[in-house]
Amino acid sequence: MRQAFQERLHSITDRLVEMTGLAGEQIRTSTTALLEADIRLADEAVAADVLLNRSQLEIEERILELMATQAPVARDLRTVLAAQRSSSDLERMGDLAVHVAKIARMRYPDVAVPAEFRSTFRDMGRTAEAMATKAGTVLRLRDLGAAAELASDDDEMDRLHRSLFVVMFDPAWHRGVEVAVDVALLGRYYERFADHAVNVAVAVRYLVTGELDGLAATAR
Amino acid sequence: MRQAFQERLHSITDRLVEMTGLAGEQIRTSTTALLEADIRLADEAVAADVLLNRSQLEIEERILELMATQAPVARDLRTVLAAQRSSSDLERMGDLAVHVAKIARMRYPDVAVPAEFRSTFRDMGRTAEAMATKAGTVLRLRDLGAAAELASDDDEMDRLHRSLFVVMFDPAWHRGVEVAVDVALLGRYYERFADHAVNVAVAVRYLVTGELDGLAATAR
Repeated sequence: MRQAFQERLHSITDRLVEMTGLAGEQIRTSTTALLEADIRLADEAVAADVLLNRSQLEIEERILELMATQAPVARDLRTVLAAQRSSSDLERMGDLAVHVAKIARMRYPDVAVPAEFRSTFRDMGRTAEAMATKAGTVLRLRDLGAAAELASDDDEMDRLHRSLFVVMFDPAWHRGVEVAVDVALLGRYYERFADHAVNVAVAVRYLVTGELDGLAATAR
Repeated sequence: MRQAFQERLHSITDRLVEMTGLAGEQIRTSTTALLEADIRLADEAVAADVLLNRSQLEIEERILELMATQAPVARDLRTVLAAQRSSSDLERMGDLAVHVAKIARMRYPDVAVPAEFRSTFRDMGRTAEAMATKAGTVLRLRDLGAAAELASDDDEMDRLHRSLFVVMFDPAWHRGVEVAVDVALLGRYYERFADHAVNVAVAVRYLVTGELDGLAATAR
């Protein structure tokens, strides 16, 4: 019984790791679409979201089946709920990548982000992708080192995010309101993508150490 | 066994209904703080968030206890997972109310939203509060009529949200970039608050009808 439970739980974890890969790819595609006004890539990123949505539903079915057939004990139930929550976080990361792609598409053939923001968004895209990959490592190996790295990547994301406003709120900055709104929303999407990657790490960390570090409960 | 399960599930549902009340109050307080630059109310809305955070953790503990002691059958497990997801949605609604309050606080003693947006934000605040209340009705009574109303309230919220951009993107609009960024982010917070209320209704609707209407899977 116990072994059957562990095997099924591993296969659920494998699907979650797969989701981190999909989320990372999706934000990379969206970021390239954004920086190069590449409408084909924007469409690709939007279409790819169905994969994460489907994975989340499949994981939910597997979780239900696991709980119905294996009658997990208390500690295992905690793991199962954490898996369920992580699948929601990963699904949401896909939605946020879609939002980025849609802004790219809406402004096509223009590039939505002007020159002075491009390197920041390139860095935000890279950080987001790296965070999705690390969330996969945390899930696969229960690697608390990678979980700690995710927290500092998130600080870096916040720094990049804040730097957008420093540029926009400079009195000498002269682009219009539409650009400002796009940049503010894009910044928010990347920041939230990062938050969800951190949530995955917090869930795993909690399972390993029993400690809630409060990160997940902070309003972000 | 079955009866003990139902009783505990009811008490979890009662806590979720309580959370809808807290979320509704929190967004009302935040909206008033925003429209009247009332820093005391802004602080109150920020401080109140601890109640929703605590409720979510308590519900999670109760869910774990329920599953560990009552060995629920397949259909009941679905209900339990839906309760867990709804508690996350409600917790998140509190975070979004906090974001609104923080913008009010950041711009104090100025009012963050200029005159031409105030009635729209008042309506967004009222709609958000009403949606939280209706999510409570949906949870308490499994009332699909109220669930359908939530979907049309959400359309109304989207309409209000879009109207902000119509004003801001008018070439005659003359406020600065900072206001535009605040208004864009505030609009997003209210819209997301509404989305989470809809998620609660979708979860309950799914439990009652077995139908996933795809609302939850759309990237919003």
